[in-house]
Amino acid sequence: MRFTSEQRLDDGVLERGFTLGEIPGILWTPAAASAQAPLILMGHPGGLHKLYPRLAARARHCAAEGYAAATIELPGSGDRPRSATAEEARADLRRALEAGEPVDDEIVDRLILPLVDKAVPEWRAALDALLSLPEVGGPVGYAGGVIAIGTRLAVVEPRISAAVLFAGSFVPRTMLEEARQVTIPLLVLLQWDDEGNDRQMALDLFDAFGSKEKTLHANMGGHTGVPQFEGDDGNRFFARHLK
Amino acid sequence: MRFTSEQRLDDGVLERGFTLGEIPGILWTPAAASAQAPLILMGHPGGLHKLYPRLAARARHCAAEGYAAATIELPGSGDRPRSATAEEARADLRRALEAGEPVDDEIVDRLILPLVDKAVPEWRAALDALLSLPEVGGPVGYAGGVIAIGTRLAVVEPRISAAVLFAGSFVPRTMLEEARQVTIPLLVLLQWDDEGNDRQMALDLFDAFGSKEKTLHANMGGHTGVPQFEGDDGNRFFARHLK
Repeated sequence: MRFTSEQRLDDGVLERGFTLGEIPGILWTPAAASAQAPLILMGHPGGLHKLYPRLAARARHCAAEGYAAATIELPGSGDRPRSATAEEARADLRRALEAGEPVDDEIVDRLILPLVDKAVPEWRAALDALLSLPEVGGPVGYAGGVIAIGTRLAVVEPRISAAVLFAGSFVPRTMLEEARQVTIPLLVLLQWDDEGNDRQMALDLFDAFGSKEKTLHANMGGHTGVPQFEGDDGNRFFARHLK
Repeated sequence: MRFTSEQRLDDGVLERGFTLGEIPGILWTPAAASAQAPLILMGHPGGLHKLYPRLAARARHCAAEGYAAATIELPGSGDRPRSATAEEARADLRRALEAGEPVDDEIVDRLILPLVDKAVPEWRAALDALLSLPEVGGPVGYAGGVIAIGTRLAVVEPRISAAVLFAGSFVPRTMLEEARQVTIPLLVLLQWDDEGNDRQMALDLFDAFGSKEKTLHANMGGHTGVPQFEGDDGNRFFARHLK
């Protein structure tokens, strides 16, 4: 892990760009870093540059509560090399959505399964690197999309103690079985009228999670319309489970 | 409205029993009643004596945030005269649930529709009486079950500005149309594995509500297992909409 940039934001939060091999990432640490800050890994749909304003706002919201927050670029997104099969699957998905057709399981599998297989080990490597920093400590939470990535991480990564999962993307049907193996506390966010998502599949996934403590928050508005108060609810969820 | 008892609870909240004609009720007002306190009407499944500990706890939670809270007995519950048709419908419902059979729409209609028809005008009369007290003012929220009663109240009672509805009881299918007429902000609570409720119907009802701002919170556990943090979430919801 190599830091590539550093700036102090106006609220005192320290923002550092880094690379982990070929993977770019960003780490935000609280202004008053007393002891080791618990860490929130921030999931997203890919494209750090485009998403920067929203990611930075989320990170500062976390930092205000004493958390460090970090994110890495997804495989095939931003400045990272494109995957031809993923691009093709994405185009097929877009065509189906624009035509108002049901989305074939096969398209979802082709788009999401290789992404999960590639992204999850990268998140785990990032976690190794981040937790080796003296200013970052456990416990660790995951917050955001892609929900299939968050689900797999929750199963395979024992250092993640709780997760806020954004059900805003398609999930391979085979991952329902994986969801049953998740046991950490979950807060699942669902945009009820998300134009690019399958509401019933999101409800089936919520039902499948094996966690004893899981909460679903569904709100109106499209994919990007998650109400601001859900940020506060997320912080309170982590306050219950990470502190 | 006639006060029949009065006691000051250990946190300073003033609890007064009252009757409104033949209907018993309870009013809780905050310790430091400065100006007029906004009012939360607390819905419940019927049986004030039995429910008193839970109702008092909810009321004190409201009062701590500056709200007055009030409730009245439901028709056919507690010390009020039983309705033979309602008792019969309740027995039919219990039989169906115990046998693990699907619950006939006809049983739900027989149980719930007359209850809604009778209870809603009573809640409105109670609201008239409560708002005439100098220490109670608007705006007004409704919080609790029976969700069919809360739904009808939200449609017909313009003084109710926001509602936390507990989706913990069966809803007549015909009320989906009524739900479309609801426009006030809603927080709907659903216990995902509620043994005596129809999850899909609760989701259909949430979908039907006409409100632009509506949020669903679904949690694990049975009917009585609503997590304590939902009380805080409810207070924050009312703080956004009643203040």
